[in-house]
Amino acid sequence: MSQNTTVPARGAARTSGTVRIVGAGLLGASIGHALSALGVDVALADTSPAQLRLAVDYGAGRAARDGDRPRLVVVAVPPDVTADVIARELADFPDAVVTDVASVKFEPLRVLRERGVDLAHYIGSHPLAGRERGGAISARADLFIGRPWVVCRDGETSPADLAVVEGLALDLGAMPLEMDPAEHDRSVALVSHVPQLVASLLAGRFAAAPDGSLRLAGQGVRDTTRIAASAPELWVQILGANAEPVVDVLDALADDLRDVADALRHPDAPGSRRAVADTIRRGNEGVDLLPGKHGQNRRFAQVVVMVDDTPGQLGRLFGELGELDVNVEDLRLEHSPGAQFGLAEISVDPGAARRAEEGLAARGWRIASTTND
Amino acid sequence: MSQNTTVPARGAARTSGTVRIVGAGLLGASIGHALSALGVDVALADTSPAQLRLAVDYGAGRAARDGDRPRLVVVAVPPDVTADVIARELADFPDAVVTDVASVKFEPLRVLRERGVDLAHYIGSHPLAGRERGGAISARADLFIGRPWVVCRDGETSPADLAVVEGLALDLGAMPLEMDPAEHDRSVALVSHVPQLVASLLAGRFAAAPDGSLRLAGQGVRDTTRIAASAPELWVQILGANAEPVVDVLDALADDLRDVADALRHPDAPGSRRAVADTIRRGNEGVDLLPGKHGQNRRFAQVVVMVDDTPGQLGRLFGELGELDVNVEDLRLEHSPGAQFGLAEISVDPGAARRAEEGLAARGWRIASTTND
Repeated sequence: MSQNTTVPARGAARTSGTVRIVGAGLLGASIGHALSALGVDVALADTSPAQLRLAVDYGAGRAARDGDRPRLVVVAVPPDVTADVIARELADFPDAVVTDVASVKFEPLRVLRERGVDLAHYIGSHPLAGRERGGAISARADLFIGRPWVVCRDGETSPADLAVVEGLALDLGAMPLEMDPAEHDRSVALVSHVPQLVASLLAGRFAAAPDGSLRLAGQGVRDTTRIAASAPELWVQILGANAEPVVDVLDALADDLRDVADALRHPDAPGSRRAVADTIRRGNEGVDLLPGKHGQNRRFAQVVVMVDDTPGQLGRLFGELGELDVNVEDLRLEHSPGAQFGLAEISVDPGAARRAEEGLAARGWRIASTTND
Repeated sequence: MSQNTTVPARGAARTSGTVRIVGAGLLGASIGHALSALGVDVALADTSPAQLRLAVDYGAGRAARDGDRPRLVVVAVPPDVTADVIARELADFPDAVVTDVASVKFEPLRVLRERGVDLAHYIGSHPLAGRERGGAISARADLFIGRPWVVCRDGETSPADLAVVEGLALDLGAMPLEMDPAEHDRSVALVSHVPQLVASLLAGRFAAAPDGSLRLAGQGVRDTTRIAASAPELWVQILGANAEPVVDVLDALADDLRDVADALRHPDAPGSRRAVADTIRRGNEGVDLLPGKHGQNRRFAQVVVMVDDTPGQLGRLFGELGELDVNVEDLRLEHSPGAQFGLAEISVDPGAARRAEEGLAARGWRIASTTND
């Protein structure tokens, strides 16, 4: 299954020499896996011998040794020690480019500058990738494929050093994106840190829910609160390190929230109904601005098929879609609690929707609906 | 594919006689489809002749006629006219049970009581089902399968009338759930109306996003804001009809939001770090309280397989899982933008995870990861 992917073949990596990775958690070990698969020499270091052994055992690289001469050092440690480790690595490996993958970029830079650290060979970066599960054991080589990888160069950065970090991102299948550290931090405050807090605050209200009310929860609230399952330790650090941009968005959001609550409290005040409608309408416009999946899906038609909850049924379904020469672009499988079957919502090219629907119906499948808009 | 479902066979419906459905939009037409499939006589009415014709053409029932003698009337009109239509139907069909499917239950009841309408044969209900797309054209007979269907009886309700409404819910595959109207409204404020507003307010902030920042949006913020795509007209009515419970939750949420913003603004104040951590932790506990998918998924192991983006590949995968006697409990397909392959995250019984992984690997599939926690 691997003959036709965007991951470069072994030996074709842009990254050469030894790459030293400090911190063998989810991100560090995932980078190690991907580089090792490309034949790059990966030297792993971690303050936890157990975590290091795990990452090595799982194939993320070898343990770092005295005498390693890395061309590139990747710092993948928790946010609160990122600046310290960057400073130490720059001192220990003066010939190497040092990058980090922390999700906040301005604060570590400010600390390093304040300490007078020579930052000529430091380039901050941030791959927008992660999982709800952490640790070396959750690492996967494909974690970065197709994801943005922010690279924060500055006036001091040499083109050669920049090429090393961007080469790393490209080797991992990510899309390098140059941004200013402060601009990066304002952006992630809006699209990552505040959504996390909002999901957490909303889910936090469920504890006070009247008895039985959560039985009425549907897919909407589940999606809205999904990321509330994230780990507290990491998020306290991330939010603390990006407090100012996060607080700016929170304050604006609190104002919006108070306005809509006031409009609902005084429905007959002039403009109240309109204020509520505008809130929903601005939300419509907002989601439309998000790139990627939302927009992409709109290009596809959806065929919803009922499938029995027994082994082999999805196999038959997809086998027959293959026979019909229908390519499945996306798929959502929904189980009805207690039911013996599920609904498979299949996204296909609009030109193939009718072929899929008619062909499947002719083969005895029950089509719940087809939407082609 | 229909031999083994929870939908009753034709003729086995609990609902008998004529069912009159007023309002042939998404909910009304979906109820019509499901009842028609069971052989029930469905009489449809709608103020829009075009909408009515569409629903009839699509098989949701026949147009209502003078002389219809329904045993059950289902009012499925927009919230702002629900009380009026209930009152009229009760007057027009004194022998029928009248129910409605509006998503707010206290306000219409208050209006009807205020007008002195005889409510002996009225039972409010609310099926927790919907789609982002509305109208008769989006209707589907399976819309209610496995979903809660709230039924609001009161002291006046006769057991025979209650059985008619609960029979309707059961015929449609839904789970009848008795609740008090005020309790229902507080519940949906928390699990539906406020999540909608929060998603809308968050997405509404994207318009003011710094240039290029939305490129960093990932799956988290996409999920958090998905329902912000909902239609303004309907939501202005729903929120207006349930303003008090919604405002109560919004006020509490605004307090929580201000507290966490203050904690981030003054990181060195006593308890600040802890307040941020508690916000995330309470969110963890909150999502754990939600029934259904989240909880269910945790019982399964996840096997992530790389699949080429060509027709027939998913068919081969699921066919081979069938040969391995592995039942797929849930599935998420992720496409990496620009990549020639996707990742199929397959949820299986933990006891089958190893068989799935080894069997697939032996057949040449590339396993990205297996999680069995």
